[in-house]
Amino acid sequence: MTRFDGRNADVLRPVTITSEYLLHPEGSVLIQVGHTKVICTATLEEKVPGFLRGQGKGWITAEYSMLPRATAQRTPRESSRGKVNGRTMEIQRLIGRALRAVVDLEALGERTVWIDCDVIQADGGTRTASITGAFVAMTQAIAKVAEEKKPFRKFPVTDFLAATSVGIVEEQGAILDLNYVEDVDAAVDMNIVMTGRGQFVELQGTGEEATFSREELNELLALGETGIQQLIEYQKAALGELATMVGGN
Amino acid sequence: MTRFDGRNADVLRPVTITSEYLLHPEGSVLIQVGHTKVICTATLEEKVPGFLRGQGKGWITAEYSMLPRATAQRTPRESSRGKVNGRTMEIQRLIGRALRAVVDLEALGERTVWIDCDVIQADGGTRTASITGAFVAMTQAIAKVAEEKKPFRKFPVTDFLAATSVGIVEEQGAILDLNYVEDVDAAVDMNIVMTGRGQFVELQGTGEEATFSREELNELLALGETGIQQLIEYQKAALGELATMVGGN
Amino acid sequence: MTRFDGRNADVLRPVTITSEYLLHPEGSVLIQVGHTKVICTATLEEKVPGFLRGQGKGWITAEYSMLPRATAQRTPRESSRGKVNGRTMEIQRLIGRALRAVVDLEALGERTVWIDCDVIQADGGTRTASITGAFVAMTQAIAKVAEEKKPFRKFPVTDFLAATSVGIVEEQGAILDLNYVEDVDAAVDMNIVMTGRGQFVELQGTGEEATFSREELNELLALGETGIQQLIEYQKAALGELATMVGGN
Amino acid sequence: MTRFDGRNADVLRPVTITSEYLLHPEGSVLIQVGHTKVICTATLEEKVPGFLRGQGKGWITAEYSMLPRATAQRTPRESSRGKVNGRTMEIQRLIGRALRAVVDLEALGERTVWIDCDVIQADGGTRTASITGAFVAMTQAIAKVAEEKKPFRKFPVTDFLAATSVGIVEEQGAILDLNYVEDVDAAVDMNIVMTGRGQFVELQGTGEEATFSREELNELLALGETGIQQLIEYQKAALGELATMVGGN
Amino acid sequence: MTRFDGRNADVLRPVTITSEYLLHPEGSVLIQVGHTKVICTATLEEKVPGFLRGQGKGWITAEYSMLPRATAQRTPRESSRGKVNGRTMEIQRLIGRALRAVVDLEALGERTVWIDCDVIQADGGTRTASITGAFVAMTQAIAKVAEEKKPFRKFPVTDFLAATSVGIVEEQGAILDLNYVEDVDAAVDMNIVMTGRGQFVELQGTGEEATFSREELNELLALGETGIQQLIEYQKAALGELATMVGGN
Amino acid sequence: MTRFDGRNADVLRPVTITSEYLLHPEGSVLIQVGHTKVICTATLEEKVPGFLRGQGKGWITAEYSMLPRATAQRTPRESSRGKVNGRTMEIQRLIGRALRAVVDLEALGERTVWIDCDVIQADGGTRTASITGAFVAMTQAIAKVAEEKKPFRKFPVTDFLAATSVGIVEEQGAILDLNYVEDVDAAVDMNIVMTGRGQFVELQGTGEEATFSREELNELLALGETGIQQLIEYQKAALGELATMVGGN
Repeated sequence: MTRFDGRNADVLRPVTITSEYLLHPEGSVLIQVGHTKVICTATLEEKVPGFLRGQGKGWITAEYSMLPRATAQRTPRESSRGKVNGRTMEIQRLIGRALRAVVDLEALGERTVWIDCDVIQADGGTRTASITGAFVAMTQAIAKVAEEKKPFRKFPVTDFLAATSVGIVEEQGAILDLNYVEDVDAAVDMNIVMTGRGQFVELQGTGEEATFSREELNELLALGETGIQQLIEYQKAALGELATMVGGN
Repeated sequence: MTRFDGRNADVLRPVTITSEYLLHPEGSVLIQVGHTKVICTATLEEKVPGFLRGQGKGWITAEYSMLPRATAQRTPRESSRGKVNGRTMEIQRLIGRALRAVVDLEALGERTVWIDCDVIQADGGTRTASITGAFVAMTQAIAKVAEEKKPFRKFPVTDFLAATSVGIVEEQGAILDLNYVEDVDAAVDMNIVMTGRGQFVELQGTGEEATFSREELNELLALGETGIQQLIEYQKAALGELATMVGGN
Repeated sequence: MTRFDGRNADVLRPVTITSEYLLHPEGSVLIQVGHTKVICTATLEEKVPGFLRGQGKGWITAEYSMLPRATAQRTPRESSRGKVNGRTMEIQRLIGRALRAVVDLEALGERTVWIDCDVIQADGGTRTASITGAFVAMTQAIAKVAEEKKPFRKFPVTDFLAATSVGIVEEQGAILDLNYVEDVDAAVDMNIVMTGRGQFVELQGTGEEATFSREELNELLALGETGIQQLIEYQKAALGELATMVGGN
Repeated sequence: MTRFDGRNADVLRPVTITSEYLLHPEGSVLIQVGHTKVICTATLEEKVPGFLRGQGKGWITAEYSMLPRATAQRTPRESSRGKVNGRTMEIQRLIGRALRAVVDLEALGERTVWIDCDVIQADGGTRTASITGAFVAMTQAIAKVAEEKKPFRKFPVTDFLAATSVGIVEEQGAILDLNYVEDVDAAVDMNIVMTGRGQFVELQGTGEEATFSREELNELLALGETGIQQLIEYQKAALGELATMVGGN
Repeated sequence: MTRFDGRNADVLRPVTITSEYLLHPEGSVLIQVGHTKVICTATLEEKVPGFLRGQGKGWITAEYSMLPRATAQRTPRESSRGKVNGRTMEIQRLIGRALRAVVDLEALGERTVWIDCDVIQADGGTRTASITGAFVAMTQAIAKVAEEKKPFRKFPVTDFLAATSVGIVEEQGAILDLNYVEDVDAAVDMNIVMTGRGQFVELQGTGEEATFSREELNELLALGETGIQQLIEYQKAALGELATMVGGN
Repeated sequence: MTRFDGRNADVLRPVTITSEYLLHPEGSVLIQVGHTKVICTATLEEKVPGFLRGQGKGWITAEYSMLPRATAQRTPRESSRGKVNGRTMEIQRLIGRALRAVVDLEALGERTVWIDCDVIQADGGTRTASITGAFVAMTQAIAKVAEEKKPFRKFPVTDFLAATSVGIVEEQGAILDLNYVEDVDAAVDMNIVMTGRGQFVELQGTGEEATFSREELNELLALGETGIQQLIEYQKAALGELATMVGGN
């Protein structure tokens, strides 16, 4: 059964990654996945958080936010409410953790890469689009270190990394890259983060007042893998020559 | 290779669930999994949050906290710091979501079950012990409604639900029910929430500056399933006669 | 003496106003003034704040924020710091007040227009660009009311409104539309908000550890007036046909 | 007239002090006074707050909290509400101040003892039970310093210290150790903290929309003294051999 | 031995109570006790807090603050730090509780008296001066109800109420009404709140790293009683004719 | 047309500046402008904020607050609400910026002057009265440095500085020094800060749902200038001999 936007179950929405989107940051992209649009920037700081100081290792940390009218209804700003909500915290922890899995923190040296993902327009899949876009911005920023300071003995980014969502919707079964309407309908929702070599980094599957079987899990994982390998092709195109440095030494 | 506390890879730590641990709550247990000890209480409130009002459905929500000296080093109280941190928020959202997967919210009617999980002593696996214990406290509290108000046409708890952690540690491979030392060492860490009928409710696998393959995933899922079925036996014992009401009608 | 970017003292930076920039809001533009880029959205809400309830009048309110890497150095998010700083509060109060001066709040009826100005890239003049862009977004949103609900007896937007900055820099004297570098150098900094009919709405002149004479004030006001009349032409182009409704009846 | 739980006016509720209740803290007890149960822990930190640095003196500080379902109705967590309320602040200031009166801070040296009192179940008298229990936990923790670091020239704990409540209830007059129901009924409520040598440390008497005479005060003080000397016997039993070090040199 | 400001042990500092000190509040005084100066205002509100609604009873609540330079060193504002500290909370709870002991809340009816005590200059004894001054402001405000709305069947203020501090300083023994220097030196510090009929309302005695005997307690209570009866004479003078309504019916 | 308090359009309310109003601060005044009363204090601190450290320059910063019953209705304390509102932030930023315009920060050396303006009673014009009063307190405090530490080579206060409000009220046209009732009625409201030499420091004109022409602006500026020169005479009288140091070298 075709989806309401005409896609088959295993088809991604159209993806665009605009490189060097902003003037100031060391790395920046605008990633669009269907109607979802996220500005991802990467900032280099020549120091690390307290718990890492003096260990010769770097760090990657991320923040995530939505503009109030990224959504159909206006969402009050977290700065006005004076605190960051649980969903935001979960997402920013996820983005940082995922990126750290493909960075050799020793090779990075005592520096922090700050990732900022700001959702300009939301239509489902904002956290996975953030990871996919942030990988590109991060790689650009790390490449700047080599350029402006001194070359790395080993380029710290060890593999590509992208993310997508998969889910189970009653009438259609397992589908890839859910938009907002499909996400609301889904009984099971899973975010998958994988590397270019096909290894898992994160797997977060959730039954929404529902459960799922081992067979359904397998089907979801297969769909996710397909999608992620395509997203990595878009990343390679956006990175251009820099793409050859990833995972090299 | 045996683990440092003498367990084999597929063995749970000793589990004790003390029922009716406290005087005031409608449901309460002290769950001990190895050295990890959590007080789980369930409170019934005869109303629902605003977004559910008037729909004839109930709600389950959870809060989680640690005593400052549950841990080896003293952890400052979140009340002193004036905000709940990201890890706490993730855990309390997880507990609530997991329990809602085995409760028929229409059958529950317009009431809220508040779950409180307070970790008295931590040695790894506090969030999974919280879910396992909270299920028992919640079932007791819901049974009180039938007793004190009026019988449900259908008992709202539709299946058993328990949780455990599995992970991959370099020297030992995949292991079940990690204690704190193992958790720190683990390259991959996964929390699994399953029902009595063997369906998944939550699957959260994370590489900690590492990744995992499809084969490793399969191995972890198998270990988790074994552990969870044993935990459900402990829950049945703790619930006594009430256990027969779960999933019945 | 020419300015470092080649402009004469009385010349604006290049201005672009992209209409209907986002999918969800009732009104939205991306305004670019030189390198400064601001997303302005307008949201309609069919109710008013408590202090206005039952008086048959509407309200306009505004929020302003910057993405962390809108600036050359990363600025910590206000949501992470848990509070909105003084500069932000000043700016959002200014935007709301300025727009209210050209809206007949009785004609608007009991509705609120929420303005959100999010600076994507900053190079001086973000608050004045926000006002100029917000006017367009607000007018679009108010026109939607007529379209979707019922026509106004009188269109509530009574005049055009735009804003620019002027200042005194030691070597160049009075100049129009300062970019970031000029703003830092300026001894006197003034924001002017004016209507299409040439009336003042706001005048905020500040000596930065400096003072200014009556003659200097006159020179600044003349420059500001020139700039604002040009900005209003850009607004008219962006609004297209809607422009004819402004100030009509 | 006998009290509703059968006690005479001058009789304490049953008291149990379980020593070394938790695995991690340097000192820990579970104190039960009737249905009131408090976990008291003591943590040693080898530094002092800023205002004491470099003076060769130590410090004792305390925090107090209740589990949400320690009470008959669920009390929202202070961490969720984002701030500690006035009652909690009063109690934690009282506990710290009381303990400092029996510790020779010079002899303690530049270290801080952090006391945490967490009420697991509340039935009146939680602050006085906290002081009585915290004294035991603190003494254990200070003894650890001697054991693990180096012996004190003089053991810093100079005397025993315990606390109880007394009050005036309309039908029964002055009574010792009020439970929750009696506390609610009391016209006058007084907390007394005394040392093993019978000196006062704190005296906090409050008329609740009522007042009390000099004669009533004398009667209350006599009851309190009786109760406290018994509580100190329970402390000695819980401390075992350590009890002989208190007040010695 | 005479005190450093020449007073004998049992002598109050000079007291002035300036009535109707401010234009807007229903009751207001400036109370000066030596160099300590506090503005006390009383505000009438024709409703009660939620927990009292519909019971036909009124309420008295108090807030207390210090100007930043009331003290020798500048104290940061609590509004800047974003929270009220423990000492402030203790004091405002004390002021409210003390005043409620001499008000017949049923006679007051469903209204709240808000007391604000703002310390303009501090030299010890700010909380007791606040209580003494607030009693006068509160009585004026309650009298306004009778005047402007309708007479009370029974005037709600049932007795006079004043407060002072007493303490034990090493070289001088027990002394009355400590100024700041004496307060810092004191080994024992006690605040006493008493009524015109000589009944206790609050007794808060604290050993500061010290203890006190029963004999010392008796001596302190005698000094306090002397001081409070004099303070009540100052209140009567400040209240003028209104003084005759207190405790009458 | 005469104003409701009998003043002509160009007449200030009665002004009193009481010098050395408080015991502790280095500079302090009580300024009264009609019924508006503000306590202004100046505190010297021998260090500067982080962003100025090591540059040999000083800093002036200001805080502003109102007592709850400075106003006709009680205003909740900002400390109770846990944050400072936008209006307060605008005012405190304005006061600091205005004072810095007449202080040679290099001559001041690495010290900070903290200004605190606390409104005891409000009847319009509290921010301009604060600036006028704060100038006197600041000058006194800076003079103390010369006295107690060592003379300045050049006295850092380079000119007098005062502020007033002007506005346009429908029936009366442009008027000077608006009280609260006039402020509420005003269509245009302008705060002017000027120096003794007649230079502008701040000009903040705002149409309240209204606009103003160039001619009206000129009229307002003329009124403001008149008022400010009179206010500076009051400052000179309050400063006495110190007045001769201002602007000297």
